Amino acid sequence: MPSIDRKTSALPLLFTAGLLTAAPALAQSPGQPEPITIRAQGSFTVGGTVATAPGTFDPLKPLQPAGQTFHGDHLYTFYQVPVNPRKYPIVMWHGAGQFSKTWETTPDGREGFQNIFLRRHFATYVIDQPRRGNAGRSTIEATIKPTPDEQFWFGQFRLGIWPDYFDGVQFDRKPETLDQYFRQMTPNTGPFDAGLISDSVSALFAKIGPGILMTHSQSGGPGWLTAIKSRNVKAIVAFEPGSGFVFPQGELPKPVPTSFDTLEGTPVPMADFLALTKVPILIFYGDNIPAAPTEVPTQDAWRGRLEMARLWRDTVNKHGGQVSLVHLPEIGIRGNTHFPFSDLNNVEIADQVSQFLAAKGLD
Amino acid sequence: MPSIDRKTSALPLLFTAGLLTAAPALAQSPGQPEPITIRAQGSFTVGGTVATAPGTFDPLKPLQPAGQTFHGDHLYTFYQVPVNPRKYPIVMWHGAGQFSKTWETTPDGREGFQNIFLRRHFATYVIDQPRRGNAGRSTIEATIKPTPDEQFWFGQFRLGIWPDYFDGVQFDRKPETLDQYFRQMTPNTGPFDAGLISDSVSALFAKIGPGILMTHSQSGGPGWLTAIKSRNVKAIVAFEPGSGFVFPQGELPKPVPTSFDTLEGTPVPMADFLALTKVPILIFYGDNIPAAPTEVPTQDAWRGRLEMARLWRDTVNKHGGQVSLVHLPEIGIRGNTHFPFSDLNNVEIADQVSQFLAAKGLD
Repeated sequence: MPSIDRKTSALPLLFTAGLLTAAPALAQSPGQPEPITIRAQGSFTVGGTVATAPGTFDPLKPLQPAGQTFHGDHLYTFYQVPVNPRKYPIVMWHGAGQFSKTWETTPDGREGFQNIFLRRHFATYVIDQPRRGNAGRSTIEATIKPTPDEQFWFGQFRLGIWPDYFDGVQFDRKPETLDQYFRQMTPNTGPFDAGLISDSVSALFAKIGPGILMTHSQSGGPGWLTAIKSRNVKAIVAFEPGSGFVFPQGELPKPVPTSFDTLEGTPVPMADFLALTKVPILIFYGDNIPAAPTEVPTQDAWRGRLEMARLWRDTVNKHGGQVSLVHLPEIGIRGNTHFPFSDLNNVEIADQVSQFLAAKGLD
Repeated sequence: MPSIDRKTSALPLLFTAGLLTAAPALAQSPGQPEPITIRAQGSFTVGGTVATAPGTFDPLKPLQPAGQTFHGDHLYTFYQVPVNPRKYPIVMWHGAGQFSKTWETTPDGREGFQNIFLRRHFATYVIDQPRRGNAGRSTIEATIKPTPDEQFWFGQFRLGIWPDYFDGVQFDRKPETLDQYFRQMTPNTGPFDAGLISDSVSALFAKIGPGILMTHSQSGGPGWLTAIKSRNVKAIVAFEPGSGFVFPQGELPKPVPTSFDTLEGTPVPMADFLALTKVPILIFYGDNIPAAPTEVPTQDAWRGRLEMARLWRDTVNKHGGQVSLVHLPEIGIRGNTHFPFSDLNNVEIADQVSQFLAAKGLD
């Protein structure tokens, strides 16, 4: 176990209204965690499509496609319900190149948000979106190329600029930690389709009822679409949404150019957009995001994304929404990467989430 | 919940030596399961390779492969350790086209072997082998084609001969059950490589220490290889191993032709083979396997596999081994498919496993 300072930050807390409610959860002792008592756990798939080959199936020629079906494009989830669960479960949705592992054990072997929020008595649903991880069966053919790209991800996920870690970064520097980190990636097994995957998460909420949605990076955009499609999304906690910010038609911001790419808003009808003003939304960004343009693409990408996120927050709130954007260094929480929920200070980040949920009456 | 007869079979028990030990586990009440208390749970990867592109990484051109790495070909596992665990954990390894879900919730929504054996106080490691499911990152390129094939699997997995279920088959017939069943498949994301995947499971046993290995179908063969590579495999429970039976060089049986394919033994050096005589091995086959050749390939395939398994049992035991082969109908347990551990009578099957482990002093 790495040396981790788990004491609660003495800095001003973002949300204070629910502090008393959240306090018992913060009192967990480090090192020797208590057992977790699970009332129910399991897995299922939801959503998806079925393709059927023309013709008639012949049991004597079972390897010929004629008349056979193919189920694919569904979501897979593993869920756990603790004893005495809180009102709403939390649906945890990974980002690009990732799967459910995002929320499980951290790369250095500590507990991730799956366990942390189970301990705080939330039911958890960790998902693999359609065409990713355990939800790999895609109705559209794909070729998966093993292109070496990990030094890019080291930068894009803001551990540092390869081969250097950022000073004070909240990431354990043992080689085996980086090995686990790289191995928690898995490819798309079919085309990425924001409409399809948000349909599947919406179908999950239809099945399980009202709940809280956590998104990360690439799932941020489809997360907004899910809240538009499903009234069962009662709050969103978005970690570093990367793209897919939806704006009302006619209110798109000017594109934000960076040395990595150019960010643009995604237009949706006003009636859809207004659904996003009805739910509390908390957005986190970590540290080491430059304030001014830089030629390092993996750095500048996040300057642009943070700028777009602020424009989005302002637009939603102008229409009556409740979006809070927390740039962690601004509240004194430093060193976070693109994965605040698994960083060395992830209990402190979880405390921020708990305080938000308490403040909004969602726990 | 479907109507399930959970009472313990009154038929002669296969293993009686450990009955008293196993009895408390059998006493679980149906319908209202007790909570499961988990001392620790999480996930990690193990094994695998690293590819590196020639050249030098340039942070200003991060999307060019030069000098970048690619970690892949590892195994992924989700583990749970109950309070007061038994001596050995159980490693649960899926078959062809399947992933960890094999052992999780059954297609009709009941508890699978993951939960059943947690309740019996075994730590469980449910794995995705390299290039499958959550272990999707492969160092070798692959194209995934969505070929309609589910009526084949309906037959090959012995639910029946499409569109008819076998009379008395231990499979729930609700359409949504079959939908979940088909959706618990996921493709290979790289070439199937028995050496690579048995290396990774061997690496898992090196990490976790001595344990019990459960295999299913396609993992049967690599399971034998794992026991050859790792002394930490203390027993194997193999459900319907399909191919890859290893024999000593010079002692290969005659090939077994079927209307599906022709089965052949896999030669290994005698010294390797003898490792398989050192561990207790229990093999299960289910029902609806014809005794005589038939023109239906999905039926005849299993006649041949069962025949090869019997030849293998006899060869291992001739060299001093401890292989028990249970053809379930022969002990009065009828209707089982290719997935006895998730069939409607899976608690009865689990009881058979518990009795075996108790008889061998492995619980």
